[in-house]
Amino acid sequence: MRFPKAIFSLPAWIEHHIPGPEQVFPEVEDRVKFAIKLSRLNVEHGTGGPFGAAVFDLQTKKLIAPGVNLVVPLNNSSAHAEVVAITIAQQVSGHYDLGSEWMPPCELSVSTEPCAMCFGAIIWSGIRQLACGARAADATRIGFDEGPKPLEWEQELEARSITVLQDICGEKASAVLHQYCRNGGVIYNSRKGIL
Amino acid sequence: MRFPKAIFSLPAWIEHHIPGPEQVFPEVEDRVKFAIKLSRLNVEHGTGGPFGAAVFDLQTKKLIAPGVNLVVPLNNSSAHAEVVAITIAQQVSGHYDLGSEWMPPCELSVSTEPCAMCFGAIIWSGIRQLACGARAADATRIGFDEGPKPLEWEQELEARSITVLQDICGEKASAVLHQYCRNGGVIYNSRKGIL
Repeated sequence: MRFPKAIFSLPAWIEHHIPGPEQVFPEVEDRVKFAIKLSRLNVEHGTGGPFGAAVFDLQTKKLIAPGVNLVVPLNNSSAHAEVVAITIAQQVSGHYDLGSEWMPPCELSVSTEPCAMCFGAIIWSGIRQLACGARAADATRIGFDEGPKPLEWEQELEARSITVLQDICGEKASAVLHQYCRNGGVIYNSRKGIL
Repeated sequence: MRFPKAIFSLPAWIEHHIPGPEQVFPEVEDRVKFAIKLSRLNVEHGTGGPFGAAVFDLQTKKLIAPGVNLVVPLNNSSAHAEVVAITIAQQVSGHYDLGSEWMPPCELSVSTEPCAMCFGAIIWSGIRQLACGARAADATRIGFDEGPKPLEWEQELEARSITVLQDICGEKASAVLHQYCRNGGVIYNSRKGIL
């Protein structure tokens, strides 16, 4: 094949921070805190932007798949934490629809509210619940561009039977964004009408 | 690693329909027709939904990367034709930003206007021009769900210096959608408030 493949692979360090297969995350705060921990570790390991996400089984409250922002190391502008977590979860479950009737309901826990692309990706993924840490405004405040989402994006998700939970450990999540900014992390792809 | 990788790989048949490295696509109609051809071939080969896309170098008018909808064969709800073409183009160019100063301006040619997710993905990709065949309404008419894009999505792209060209060989593109529908193709992930 003349064209290369693109591979979504998690960074090696993540292995050391993955809970054992029996660990449960009973409360939504536990699950979002895990996504926030991934966002912090991604910054500390220099493997991408300050964003973490994870797909959880809402019946067992166990992790299905983690995700971190891998745009820079994978040379892939779509490799946001949410897309990575959803993509890996779909490989784990062997189906493109995490909302299939044979699947347990799944939650996507994210360190920061989704951008315009991830908002759309969530709709197609079959995720039944979205739990968010920091607000989009926290990301835009340090220069990240969340893109043009519909104004009432939460209602758009709810209308498609996706429950939205916001401000879960928001300050903890926001602190990672600020740490990234203070350390001079790359704020990429915020091209706004400037060529 | 406990978690599997996810691989974006083009279907084998595409190799036989890729132009030689010297072939130019001088007019926008030539480029969108190529995306439409991919959409038709994807249906004929049964490798995914009726959507094709391609990234072109706007200086040389040559193909950088093709893409087709691979949601079902790759078990990946994000593997829309646009995301596949952008992702492969970024692997070819070795950078996550196709709008970098050392890159030629790139066009994404698509058989059908982008959905809500791909709309966001285009913004982060660095694409400078979007050329569309069929209208989103053509896709929704046969049951596909384009998702909640901002009402004035074209203006949102233009505001970020992404030129939008619409209705390029629209009837030809729409015909593939209708052929897919007539043949009983899977219309997936159009969950609209029904669990």
